[in-house]
Amino acid sequence: MHHHELASLGQQLRVDAVRAADAAGSGHPTSSMSAADIGAVLLAHHLRFDFDHPEHPGNDRLVLSKGHASPLLYAMYKAAGAVDDDELLTFRELGSRLEGHPTPRLPWVDVATGSLGQGLPVGVGMALAGKRLDDVPYHVYVLSGDSEMAEGSVWEAVEHAAYNHLDNLTLVVDVNRLGQRGPTRHEHDLAAYERRLHAFGWHTVEVDGHDVEALDRAFAEARSTIRQPTAILAATRKGRGVAAVEDLEGFHGKPLKDADAAIAELGGPRHLRVDVQKPPEATAARRTVTNAGGDEGEAPQTELPRFDVGDAVATRTAYGHALEALGSARADVVALDAEVGDSTRTEFFAKAHPDRYFECYIAEQQLVAAAVGLQTRGYVPYASTFAAFLSRAYDFVRMAAVSRAGINLVGSHAGVAIGQDGPSQMGLEDLAMFRSVHGSTVLYPCDANQTARLVATMADLKGVRYLRTSRSDMPVLYGPDETFPVGGSKVLRSHGDDDKATVVAAGVTLHEALKAADLLEEHGIPVRVVDLYSVKPVDVDTLSDAAAATGCLLTVEDHHPEGGLGDAVAEAFSDGRPAPRMARLAVRDMPASATPEEQLRKAGIDAEAIVAAVQLLVERGIAP
Amino acid sequence: MHHHELASLGQQLRVDAVRAADAAGSGHPTSSMSAADIGAVLLAHHLRFDFDHPEHPGNDRLVLSKGHASPLLYAMYKAAGAVDDDELLTFRELGSRLEGHPTPRLPWVDVATGSLGQGLPVGVGMALAGKRLDDVPYHVYVLSGDSEMAEGSVWEAVEHAAYNHLDNLTLVVDVNRLGQRGPTRHEHDLAAYERRLHAFGWHTVEVDGHDVEALDRAFAEARSTIRQPTAILAATRKGRGVAAVEDLEGFHGKPLKDADAAIAELGGPRHLRVDVQKPPEATAARRTVTNAGGDEGEAPQTELPRFDVGDAVATRTAYGHALEALGSARADVVALDAEVGDSTRTEFFAKAHPDRYFECYIAEQQLVAAAVGLQTRGYVPYASTFAAFLSRAYDFVRMAAVSRAGINLVGSHAGVAIGQDGPSQMGLEDLAMFRSVHGSTVLYPCDANQTARLVATMADLKGVRYLRTSRSDMPVLYGPDETFPVGGSKVLRSHGDDDKATVVAAGVTLHEALKAADLLEEHGIPVRVVDLYSVKPVDVDTLSDAAAATGCLLTVEDHHPEGGLGDAVAEAFSDGRPAPRMARLAVRDMPASATPEEQLRKAGIDAEAIVAAVQLLVERGIAP
Repeated sequence: MHHHELASLGQQLRVDAVRAADAAGSGHPTSSMSAADIGAVLLAHHLRFDFDHPEHPGNDRLVLSKGHASPLLYAMYKAAGAVDDDELLTFRELGSRLEGHPTPRLPWVDVATGSLGQGLPVGVGMALAGKRLDDVPYHVYVLSGDSEMAEGSVWEAVEHAAYNHLDNLTLVVDVNRLGQRGPTRHEHDLAAYERRLHAFGWHTVEVDGHDVEALDRAFAEARSTIRQPTAILAATRKGRGVAAVEDLEGFHGKPLKDADAAIAELGGPRHLRVDVQKPPEATAARRTVTNAGGDEGEAPQTELPRFDVGDAVATRTAYGHALEALGSARADVVALDAEVGDSTRTEFFAKAHPDRYFECYIAEQQLVAAAVGLQTRGYVPYASTFAAFLSRAYDFVRMAAVSRAGINLVGSHAGVAIGQDGPSQMGLEDLAMFRSVHGSTVLYPCDANQTARLVATMADLKGVRYLRTSRSDMPVLYGPDETFPVGGSKVLRSHGDDDKATVVAAGVTLHEALKAADLLEEHGIPVRVVDLYSVKPVDVDTLSDAAAATGCLLTVEDHHPEGGLGDAVAEAFSDGRPAPRMARLAVRDMPASATPEEQLRKAGIDAEAIVAAVQLLVERGIAP
Repeated sequence: MHHHELASLGQQLRVDAVRAADAAGSGHPTSSMSAADIGAVLLAHHLRFDFDHPEHPGNDRLVLSKGHASPLLYAMYKAAGAVDDDELLTFRELGSRLEGHPTPRLPWVDVATGSLGQGLPVGVGMALAGKRLDDVPYHVYVLSGDSEMAEGSVWEAVEHAAYNHLDNLTLVVDVNRLGQRGPTRHEHDLAAYERRLHAFGWHTVEVDGHDVEALDRAFAEARSTIRQPTAILAATRKGRGVAAVEDLEGFHGKPLKDADAAIAELGGPRHLRVDVQKPPEATAARRTVTNAGGDEGEAPQTELPRFDVGDAVATRTAYGHALEALGSARADVVALDAEVGDSTRTEFFAKAHPDRYFECYIAEQQLVAAAVGLQTRGYVPYASTFAAFLSRAYDFVRMAAVSRAGINLVGSHAGVAIGQDGPSQMGLEDLAMFRSVHGSTVLYPCDANQTARLVATMADLKGVRYLRTSRSDMPVLYGPDETFPVGGSKVLRSHGDDDKATVVAAGVTLHEALKAADLLEEHGIPVRVVDLYSVKPVDVDTLSDAAAATGCLLTVEDHHPEGGLGDAVAEAFSDGRPAPRMARLAVRDMPASATPEEQLRKAGIDAEAIVAAVQLLVERGIAP
């Protein structure tokens, strides 16, 4: 396109953004208008994307980190012929694919955005896939706002991108000077951003974001820069093109008051259609790896590690070996860690499959974001750190669910059972955190063979999958051929209708429950013990049977009392039918340093506490 | 001290760190040894701290961000005469104050550390208090590791500190080259850190971290630098002084194998005692503000806003007005926001009390960390953003609990009821997230007067207090003089023993429950309606009474089904006694854009869904 046509396309994108927001009665036209020329130049001259084949492996990626500027993105899709004008005007309506913030319900959107500061970290994951795994020369474009540069996650990504020489990544910062409630920290000081990015090792280009010729050159420079990611710092004006709102405060996130006048001021509706460049032919034959365990054929044989019953093995160690084995069987499995691979045991994978291992250093947001980025390219990521530190990335986990991302997150060092290190290192909220994520799966194994099986099983599930592992060695309870369906549980002790109570536990407390069951039997109180390794979904049938047979349930968990195992079991009895009597043991006080055994005792979740609680429950009908 | 004595003190700190870890059989001596000379110079020549009066307002603050190096900190306390040698050797024992990572169980520790990358953001909060509120010339020292510079939260703080010209803040980075599992990204490249910090506007000093003379000069330079925070970048060697471990991989987080030999190599035990400088006399008379509502006297009269029953007011708006009023009554109340004050309504406070308002821009980790820092100085912070985006700071919330911090967090735009913006902006995991935090309080008001009362009440609670507010206007239900004790609830509809079921709701769903109750009464099904504004602690008595009277409970929440209201009510029936029949309505599908009314209908949490669910529950004994 000639430059005057590009400018005209920019105006068209503005008009369509104004129209969409006007039709919706809400949305962010002014934030769209500042970036319209950026969008026009990118779409018409630089993006290589086959809109008819969004699965094309050679397609560039475009992440709208400033997701509230969705009207711009949808206007670009319209200009590319991917959506029609009728659909554009369904913006923000019930049932429309054109949501307030973009989601992968649209086939051209890889990840949901709208929580600021996530686009670049996820884009880094996509660029890592292109650079280190796919060997396809797609380019990743991230369009971000200036306000979101305050997010620490952006700087984790800035560091990671430069360190990995991701020259297939371009960040465009729409520096429109105005955040939601007023001026940004740096307003139009492009040099402030330039200094920071440059210090981290980025190539930077400062540009007038409304000069299409300059933008065109900047994008060309970005694509041709080698060994460095490029940031295009574009000075723009929010609401550009409409004098009533341009560069003025108070117009964030609102449709324009007089849309017709604004459209007229912008030159009226246009009908430019962009013939977006397609990716190179040569890349068409290549295909992104697909999940080998999916519908397309037999799952490859994974030679999972086998552990002998009675041996003492930490579940984190079993995880490490299983992941290594899974990586040997499946080319689509990748692993990531936040610089604690010797603790989480991802180091086994790292040594066996260094080409598919991603060290994210101590940057948990980047860890989860990279996993999300990698899964958009067909990989099956396992991202690990201490369970406690996954809380650092909770917003990324939440958004992964909105992105319909399939990721495996593995948190080690769960609970007080870690011992001396104290509460800062103990995952005590992780079950609550992951249970409440939409569509998630939460697994908590108690032994090595169970862990290995679950590690393999979780690969092919949908959504966010969480596996909780423990620090200390624990006896192997199950044989290596035992299977553990998601949503299932195991009844490890039962005396049929003689059982006076059911103890429900998982992980470290399962071992305490078994000890307690033995002691209780000596006291003449036979109990049922359920290994609830699948915390979500939970095995309603087995729990219901146990409730019917024993009349009461005691849950025991190395977790705070809220949101974990106790709540999961209670939820199983929310079907309107009579519920059993229930009691729960959990970590109710703030722990300190102590040995693992002392911790379990002090928290009241060891065998002795279980014995006492069952006695109370059975004999007096009350909880401790 | 002469420089050779400083060097000797450094060796003493190393010896004591080695001894403490050896006695414990775990811990991080090598990470302590790298920073020992830094600790020696700081303690002997620069820190002004009255160890006998840790509450002294003029005391400098010392935050050990690399909390795993706790043996160094405790060795410093011993050198200062604050702990004795016997106590030093209780390190990591059950009952000892000397935990694996420092916590405020020690009177000289303001905040718990151990989750890396939190020390600087919290230090920024302390420095903001000193600079903008206290007007006391204390200095804030943060000692951090090099690995943790990868955390985005550090860069949020770096930006915030420079932007606020916090020259009362010094960051010392112990660049010991080795992280937990191997070399850091930048190893000994001090210039890499220097470039980054300098770009953000910091003064930097590069120094050999084992040259006490150079360190002495660096600290002096830091303290005398004006208008800028200073970073001392100290090149050190992990395990310094013991050849078997010095600068070698594989010795992170382990006691030295031969402690006696190491101690001998370090020159043997020493008994230097440091007479730590006290803060200036002139600052002694000043006192940090204390919580005016505490034990020390009458709470000042707060003229809370009063809303008329029947008026339509959003709870977020009521929060804004109440916070403004609270700020007028109490000098200790401060407010913070992450650049969405026009949405959360903290803008009312900002306009009325600009001196006590802290704009954190879009950096939620810094937002929560600053609140934690401010409360260490006696302030009562209210930090607000969208409920969804508080998930960005979950690790900081978790650590705030370990720090025994008293902070108020207010999350607006809860649930699908926000409408068109879609799932990225909806808080749907926040109740789960906050319920599972140790010692937390979780409040969810449904009307403006209730909100105002709870805003005032939460100020004087202990621990992490969370208030969930809603976007849309809702009718005022309660009169302005109604009181709402924490742990209470309100029965808004009751027909005594005629009630066939109890509907438990809060916030937006409470209004739907009331509508449903009217419809159900028309259908001949009288129901009880409980307003469960206190989600944690939960009103067990009222729920038990309702269960006894009606036999079944239906919970309705604008939140995912896990971890929120439904779980909280279920938890109330975990006392081992017979539980009622229960069912729950919650947001089970991934929402998209739609109007608020459509959202509630689609999620199945509106009046119509409640009517249907109660009918099922009462007539057929099952859940939808």
